[in-house]
Amino acid sequence: MDSRSSADRLAQRCAEQMWSGDNASRALGMVVESVGEGCATLSMIVREDMVNGLNTCHGGLIFSLADSTFAFACNSQNEVAVAASCSIDFVAPAYKGDRLIASATMLHQGKRAGVYDVIVRNADGKTVAHLRGRSVRTGGSLVEAG
Amino acid sequence: MDSRSSADRLAQRCAEQMWSGDNASRALGMVVESVGEGCATLSMIVREDMVNGLNTCHGGLIFSLADSTFAFACNSQNEVAVAASCSIDFVAPAYKGDRLIASATMLHQGKRAGVYDVIVRNADGKTVAHLRGRSVRTGGSLVEAG
Amino acid sequence: MDSRSSADRLAQRCAEQMWSGDNASRALGMVVESVGEGCATLSMIVREDMVNGLNTCHGGLIFSLADSTFAFACNSQNEVAVAASCSIDFVAPAYKGDRLIASATMLHQGKRAGVYDVIVRNADGKTVAHLRGRSVRTGGSLVEAG
Amino acid sequence: MDSRSSADRLAQRCAEQMWSGDNASRALGMVVESVGEGCATLSMIVREDMVNGLNTCHGGLIFSLADSTFAFACNSQNEVAVAASCSIDFVAPAYKGDRLIASATMLHQGKRAGVYDVIVRNADGKTVAHLRGRSVRTGGSLVEAG
Repeated sequence: MDSRSSADRLAQRCAEQMWSGDNASRALGMVVESVGEGCATLSMIVREDMVNGLNTCHGGLIFSLADSTFAFACNSQNEVAVAASCSIDFVAPAYKGDRLIASATMLHQGKRAGVYDVIVRNADGKTVAHLRGRSVRTGGSLVEAG
Repeated sequence: MDSRSSADRLAQRCAEQMWSGDNASRALGMVVESVGEGCATLSMIVREDMVNGLNTCHGGLIFSLADSTFAFACNSQNEVAVAASCSIDFVAPAYKGDRLIASATMLHQGKRAGVYDVIVRNADGKTVAHLRGRSVRTGGSLVEAG
Repeated sequence: MDSRSSADRLAQRCAEQMWSGDNASRALGMVVESVGEGCATLSMIVREDMVNGLNTCHGGLIFSLADSTFAFACNSQNEVAVAASCSIDFVAPAYKGDRLIASATMLHQGKRAGVYDVIVRNADGKTVAHLRGRSVRTGGSLVEAG
Repeated sequence: MDSRSSADRLAQRCAEQMWSGDNASRALGMVVESVGEGCATLSMIVREDMVNGLNTCHGGLIFSLADSTFAFACNSQNEVAVAASCSIDFVAPAYKGDRLIASATMLHQGKRAGVYDVIVRNADGKTVAHLRGRSVRTGGSLVEAG
């Protein structure tokens, strides 16, 4: 028997549906650690091909991890949503080999618009970046209800 | 004889130095189209491994292109700078096969802090995203002066 | 005969309708300098009661001027719109007595969502702040068409 | 005997110093409810002269309350700091007569740059806006140490 709430099980089914088509997140080596209603946690290891000229992880790939995590969270209620805008603060560098863990939580979800926060940390628990994302529901659902 | 200004030639040398270490931008297939003082243009073709579950280019990779372009612009005066924060607005989707062109311009550059705008367009000239980036100079130069 | 386009005349009528109820902008001494389709210019003089502990204009009042200017621009097509989110960069201080001029332009306007840029300058033309605003149309119109 | 930590008492002294010069926050009727190291809570009642054309509190004045609260938090360690940029999400309207309460917390504080979150709620606890502010220390202290 599944001890999670039905809302969390629905979030899990939405995540599986999203993941099946998400070439980009897979190509970047992301792992979906957990999903629930309005929240998600993903991880990614900083590879050799992800560092930039300053020998630290390219900000765009830190953003990508945070953005995917945001996407799983804002689509977790079985209503298709897209990112309308995001802001990100980079507070510490990440290095080759670091395992980054991103956790998204819902700040606000209206009928259409949502606001979500994502914190990206390294394996030592040090915060690397804070993302705030604004989502818009576009109509339609990810999976069949029930 | 080089008809460009010495500031633009310095920007070109900084770009070459950055590019030589920028594994991430190269792995994503980016091309540096042009650089000048306070500005830069980069392009990237949306590959099969860059699309997400909605069959459009992952927002993180659109951001990555814009962020690299911002980096070339804010490092163009031979003072090492990093992105402190960025905000991005996604206004139209990009699709597999699209060639995206990102152009960065300087809004403000103080002694340490800078503000830059980047517009990402597809090959039809349609705007895909607007990024605004805030940079901070960390000390040190990219290339030897002169 | 009115040489402006009908779109600009509609923008003017929308502005008059907004202004009539806008206690806040009037109380802050703002002046609507001009409005047109997708754009607006407002001004405000920094009063004694607008400075903060650092003896410069409170950032919230610079924001207020920019936000009002954004509102006039994003409501100029006779569809009621509200600000969903804004980001602002403060690049130079403003002082008591300064006349600030804010100009808004439309970057993007879809069926519902819009993105607008506002630049706030002082009377010497020096840029004080850059605001980027995201608007959402809520349904309904400001004035009767025709 | 003062049961608060010495860091919180220092924050209180910094707040008193800031408040003494902060004409703008006083003119808007703000009240400093509490301050501590890296945090602050301020309140403001939405007056007749703060509503806009849609009969709701002008977004600039909600921002002003959040921005002042951010300022008290980011100056609480006796190092003068200014707002470099802020982003704000407006998630519910506030109305004439509402008492708004803004609470700021520190997400990150480096040697120079800081990131703070502010939540603005009404008296029913409903969230009105989320502000994220980036501060920069400019050198100098607010009060004499000791």
